[in-house]
Amino acid sequence: MITHALLTDMYQFTMMQGLFTQNKHRTRCVFDRFYRTNPFQGAYTVVAGLEQVIEYVKGLRFSEDDIIYLRQTGVFTEEFLDYLTTFRFTGTIYAAPEGSVVFPGEVLLRVESAKDEAILLETALSMFLNHESLIATKARRIRSVIGKDGVAEFGMRRAQGVSAAVQGARAAFIGGFDSTSDVYSAALYGMRPVGTMAHSWVMSFPTEIDAFRAYADQYENNLVFLVDTYNTLHKGVPAAIQVFQEIRERRGGTMPSIYGIRLDSGDLAYLSIEARKMLDEAGFKEALIFATNDLDEYKIADLKQQGAEITAWGVGTKLITADETPALGGVYKLAGQWEGDTFMPAMKFSDNIEKVTNPGKKKVLRLINTRNNKLIGDLICLDHETVDTTQDYVFKNPLHPWKQTVLKANTFRVQELLVPIFVDGELVYDIPTLAQVKVYGEEQIQLLWPEFLRLRRAPEVKVNISEELHQLKSKLLLEKVGNPS
Amino acid sequence: MITHALLTDMYQFTMMQGLFTQNKHRTRCVFDRFYRTNPFQGAYTVVAGLEQVIEYVKGLRFSEDDIIYLRQTGVFTEEFLDYLTTFRFTGTIYAAPEGSVVFPGEVLLRVESAKDEAILLETALSMFLNHESLIATKARRIRSVIGKDGVAEFGMRRAQGVSAAVQGARAAFIGGFDSTSDVYSAALYGMRPVGTMAHSWVMSFPTEIDAFRAYADQYENNLVFLVDTYNTLHKGVPAAIQVFQEIRERRGGTMPSIYGIRLDSGDLAYLSIEARKMLDEAGFKEALIFATNDLDEYKIADLKQQGAEITAWGVGTKLITADETPALGGVYKLAGQWEGDTFMPAMKFSDNIEKVTNPGKKKVLRLINTRNNKLIGDLICLDHETVDTTQDYVFKNPLHPWKQTVLKANTFRVQELLVPIFVDGELVYDIPTLAQVKVYGEEQIQLLWPEFLRLRRAPEVKVNISEELHQLKSKLLLEKVGNPS
Repeated sequence: MITHALLTDMYQFTMMQGLFTQNKHRTRCVFDRFYRTNPFQGAYTVVAGLEQVIEYVKGLRFSEDDIIYLRQTGVFTEEFLDYLTTFRFTGTIYAAPEGSVVFPGEVLLRVESAKDEAILLETALSMFLNHESLIATKARRIRSVIGKDGVAEFGMRRAQGVSAAVQGARAAFIGGFDSTSDVYSAALYGMRPVGTMAHSWVMSFPTEIDAFRAYADQYENNLVFLVDTYNTLHKGVPAAIQVFQEIRERRGGTMPSIYGIRLDSGDLAYLSIEARKMLDEAGFKEALIFATNDLDEYKIADLKQQGAEITAWGVGTKLITADETPALGGVYKLAGQWEGDTFMPAMKFSDNIEKVTNPGKKKVLRLINTRNNKLIGDLICLDHETVDTTQDYVFKNPLHPWKQTVLKANTFRVQELLVPIFVDGELVYDIPTLAQVKVYGEEQIQLLWPEFLRLRRAPEVKVNISEELHQLKSKLLLEKVGNPS
Repeated sequence: MITHALLTDMYQFTMMQGLFTQNKHRTRCVFDRFYRTNPFQGAYTVVAGLEQVIEYVKGLRFSEDDIIYLRQTGVFTEEFLDYLTTFRFTGTIYAAPEGSVVFPGEVLLRVESAKDEAILLETALSMFLNHESLIATKARRIRSVIGKDGVAEFGMRRAQGVSAAVQGARAAFIGGFDSTSDVYSAALYGMRPVGTMAHSWVMSFPTEIDAFRAYADQYENNLVFLVDTYNTLHKGVPAAIQVFQEIRERRGGTMPSIYGIRLDSGDLAYLSIEARKMLDEAGFKEALIFATNDLDEYKIADLKQQGAEITAWGVGTKLITADETPALGGVYKLAGQWEGDTFMPAMKFSDNIEKVTNPGKKKVLRLINTRNNKLIGDLICLDHETVDTTQDYVFKNPLHPWKQTVLKANTFRVQELLVPIFVDGELVYDIPTLAQVKVYGEEQIQLLWPEFLRLRRAPEVKVNISEELHQLKSKLLLEKVGNPS
């Protein structure tokens, strides 16, 4: 059986072997994960995928079949393959917890390890975090326009494969969704699986009323009738009302706690408003109106703005495929390495100034206003730096020093974004339950002022690099210019 | 251990149980899979994902843990759960083979089975085929602008999860790619894994020349130097040329069969043209110029048009996430069911005329010009219909009968698109190797005239429904109007 130890790009193996042959493979180094641009033209990204990274790193061993396969490629020496048989991750990983709200340029995960270990992790680690963070972010955008209505993830059939469906449903939950239609994911992660009927149910009976009655006989407490199979307002809603009336009579005048209709086509604003009137007139004021059909945050915002009487939402395709920005461009770059006992910060140079990376072993400090609990901004700094909250602090952009805010002593607190996950190969992180992650995610989004939740053209959250990091970066840039390789 | 038997939407289970309670679950029925709109504004879709469907259907059993989980939801009766423990797929599936080039409205897969079996399959089956067909189609579009250059799939780190990466690489191969960087997928499916070095390799050495030399010492036969870490034309390419010269001297004047450089940033047209000149002047006319960096079919077409001297391509993010159309909207609809011994065709009605489905048990016949082997068009017809190629045949659109072509006797042949996969629960399909699928895919795309490969605003391939199917559809529509449910 081949294992996920092969879940990487071929060049990671050719580089690992190259370093091995040069005896440079155990050079200790630091790699950073970060991204450059917010997805969906928004102001933030919601972190997800760390649990999958942890599972992957913990289980990272080469099976016999992995080795047999690598041997077959003809690219690797027996010495290197031998070495791989005992390969384990023995390094240290710090990362932003799932649910964290983060911004461009910030270190979101930091690996400090032998270089071959750091290299091997890159591809899979990037994939897990890029994918799941993207879906959690899309989900958060949807939640931000939905308010307190219920919202379920319905996307499996259009997902880009099993993991996209299963981990996507989990990421959506982290981003604020309530439930999923995906039974497998619900079972795996302890979410609530939801769903009632499809058009094929209605079409399996001579009339809609027959279909609804048959359903009601069995699922009196989970009654959502799909009313658009033939004609929503002329047939579907009246049929639903008739069956609701039958149920009410049978129950002596009461209704189950949850019941309603689902609209899956047509103009959802118009249909929901008309259906609401019909339901209200028949005395079913508590009936839910559930809407589905290619929804996303924009369509939902429009429907809300047009007074749609929708009380619960199902979002599928456009959430689960991260429509509009189907990839988060998170990258993983060398930030430094030890040469003997000396740590040598490293950076990627580029003619594009925004592609020049931040050198050194770094961390992210969040500065939070203690009065209103809102984020003032994030500081990317070197690992040994601290900010003293009992002193005034000048929070500034070293490239544009006139852009500065003075934080008065004892008016703000500092929170470290990155927490230890693995230390010297040992998992030290107490993995939170998904429910805990969800709560943390809600707290995190509360750190932002509402303007940062705007769907388009949101202002940028302030992220500065520290003066010391700025000095280091400038020094390395100047050295490079003076010392062409 | 929960299994992929749970890989479905919750409503499939509630409907299955509903039918079970009504004793309608074993009603034999026919479901069709089809899609309505070509992805990427193109003229076709390339089918992929059938192998995953076969695996899924073959393995479909409920484990003890599946049953325990379903019981926990509180929605299912013990009778139904008991029934699930012996559940198997016992029906018949016909499908278009992987690599088939197909068009909107065509039946691409047909399930004929007890209704509960057909219902359970819908979600996972749709997901596999939607996802993989989408990637195969994107890959084919890229191949169609690349001509005979080499092209590798490089997308894992940006894929929407493990399956998106692993099955995506396979689908890209079906769509005409040569290789992948994804070692796991290469191992699983027997593709060629490719890759050489990343920027972190170059940054692990004092200078680029050191980095290239170290690499060349080990991989003389797999030499592609990444030349854009510092400055492509001033540093990277000269360093590569110097190391190539050293190799040539060492080898007594010859070069390895494959060697070259990779460009991963900047203006790829300009840089490749300049690099080509430099390589040629140094006598390295055979050196490959490999290009990567957020490529897709449009950027590649532009680069080709601008005379870029690129000989091999790596395509990642935009392929593996199906950028532009991240979901294929394939659907699965009830086409009919038996009532006693009578087959009753069914259709989904809709105010949107294009959403009205085709009723009945159907198939697709491809009409191919025997002289040039090009596709004349596809005919969607009822299962018992035939087209006699020894007679003149009028290929027409029943809605617009003036749109017709007379095919002269003995100038065309007829090919059935759908082939038997499962018959009465038995797998009868001789699953082709991936290499065979690839060859079939190449043959299929050759059926199309070049204008259908246009990236944008391609003409539509003719797909007509038969006169008999048209009559049936009209009859059912009129009955519905006369007999409101």
